[in-house]
Amino acid sequence: MAIERVTVVGLGLIGSSIARAAKARLPQVTVTGHDASADVREEARTLGLCDTIADDPAASVLGSDLVILAVPVGRMADAAAAIAPGLKPDAIISDVGSSKAGVADALAKALPDHVVIPAHPVAGTENSGPAAGFATLFEGRWCIVTPGASAPADAVAALSGFWEALGAKVDTMDAAHHDMVLAVTSHLPHLIAYTIVGTASELEEVTESEVIKYSAGGFRDFTRIAASDPVMWRDVFLANKDAVLETLQRFNEDLTALQQAIRRGDGAKLEDWFTRTRAIRRSIIEQGQDDAAPDFGRRH
Amino acid sequence: MAIERVTVVGLGLIGSSIARAAKARLPQVTVTGHDASADVREEARTLGLCDTIADDPAASVLGSDLVILAVPVGRMADAAAAIAPGLKPDAIISDVGSSKAGVADALAKALPDHVVIPAHPVAGTENSGPAAGFATLFEGRWCIVTPGASAPADAVAALSGFWEALGAKVDTMDAAHHDMVLAVTSHLPHLIAYTIVGTASELEEVTESEVIKYSAGGFRDFTRIAASDPVMWRDVFLANKDAVLETLQRFNEDLTALQQAIRRGDGAKLEDWFTRTRAIRRSIIEQGQDDAAPDFGRRH
Repeated sequence: MAIERVTVVGLGLIGSSIARAAKARLPQVTVTGHDASADVREEARTLGLCDTIADDPAASVLGSDLVILAVPVGRMADAAAAIAPGLKPDAIISDVGSSKAGVADALAKALPDHVVIPAHPVAGTENSGPAAGFATLFEGRWCIVTPGASAPADAVAALSGFWEALGAKVDTMDAAHHDMVLAVTSHLPHLIAYTIVGTASELEEVTESEVIKYSAGGFRDFTRIAASDPVMWRDVFLANKDAVLETLQRFNEDLTALQQAIRRGDGAKLEDWFTRTRAIRRSIIEQGQDDAAPDFGRRH
Repeated sequence: MAIERVTVVGLGLIGSSIARAAKARLPQVTVTGHDASADVREEARTLGLCDTIADDPAASVLGSDLVILAVPVGRMADAAAAIAPGLKPDAIISDVGSSKAGVADALAKALPDHVVIPAHPVAGTENSGPAAGFATLFEGRWCIVTPGASAPADAVAALSGFWEALGAKVDTMDAAHHDMVLAVTSHLPHLIAYTIVGTASELEEVTESEVIKYSAGGFRDFTRIAASDPVMWRDVFLANKDAVLETLQRFNEDLTALQQAIRRGDGAKLEDWFTRTRAIRRSIIEQGQDDAAPDFGRRH
């Protein structure tokens, strides 16, 4: 199954990075782009992101072998309905959403007669919009593909091959397991970061100006992901509610235990916990999922 | 008040960075080092960190105008007692501890007849030990000096001048306020990071290997500060217990509110919160306290 024409719907950080990576690494593939916002379409044209930018969603997918919806997960159903009239019968429809079970349902409902294979490239930065994307965003990162039971094997292979061609490593799992894994590795961290940045900015005893000045003590690390796109993340938490609440419950139990250890002056428990967490970072660096340079490689 | 001889007691990340920065920027100053560990002293000699490395703590401070204790805050009292016999009557004794009220008490008790001026350079990396330090660690970072009411103004000015000479910007505040500010900007972030890294590594539904593979979704940001020195951080939480527990209480209230918003599907509340937190990062970058490059400047 050859992928010769690709359409990317939604040209923000992820969508524009797919378009750039495809243009850079797959010169034989024609890339068409569409975005619901006329301003974004105009910016994408100026940036030369795609071979063509279509104003109409249905027109953007005409003749495409692969259509990737790169919109917030709360907008997947509408985006799918909007492209439906233009789809080839054998087109593969995929997405990049951070939660998969809800998206799989929404797309299957909107496109009952098409091949839908949800996917999620685990990559990004805190920036948003078409100018924030770059061609190397997916290099060495994992893309998780979550095909339903009825997904044709050749279509799954074609989609996986496309992501590998963009530089990603591909894993396949079911949507429910994806949602639990990502609740831990991405959604809970974002929720915690959003919470603490909000907490710090609203204390009476410490001014916001002090929080900013002394942020190099650790706080600034949390502000990066708390600067991520608000609409995208609103939708993620609403779509993956159950898994997020379950992992949050575990986090709360652990936090209460450490809180008690501090209150009781139980230094041995604290030191033991802090020693175990050190090993995880070493593994992440060894597996190429973070920079080995101290302080994330920040310039000093 | 001229500072011509400096002793650094404790040659880990911060102590060795002070020695390196002083050697690089203050060629007229003689730097003596001491560490309670013979292995660390040997490593410091091999690295050429100081003009002299003394095996005995009291001998290390003979003739020194400024002595900086760069040991975990739980060891300040012992370190102060060990240097006391060698101190010049008019020597300034300072430290680099992350909590200040408890350290001020401990040092005042151990050295009742000396000039004690606690300080805290808000800088660091996740790495530990003499080899982890570097001369530019303090450039553009804040050093908070917390003189007691009886501290001589010329000694405060001399200590502040020393830190400015190492490239830091200096602020002065009282110890109790410092401890509240740092509870928010540093201690709570570390506690949260330590918690979530522990939580993620002990879930039954998601393997540690999956947590590591997909950590680029946000989790890896927390692993950096959760890889910080376990003994140093054990001591910080025990020493700054009250302020940490108070800010943790605020964090828990906010987290509960966001948890409720997720459970109830209140997207407007989530989006509003996530939009406000975005502005803080912009201010931190504008004020030079973090890298403007996306993703902390990690290589892609």
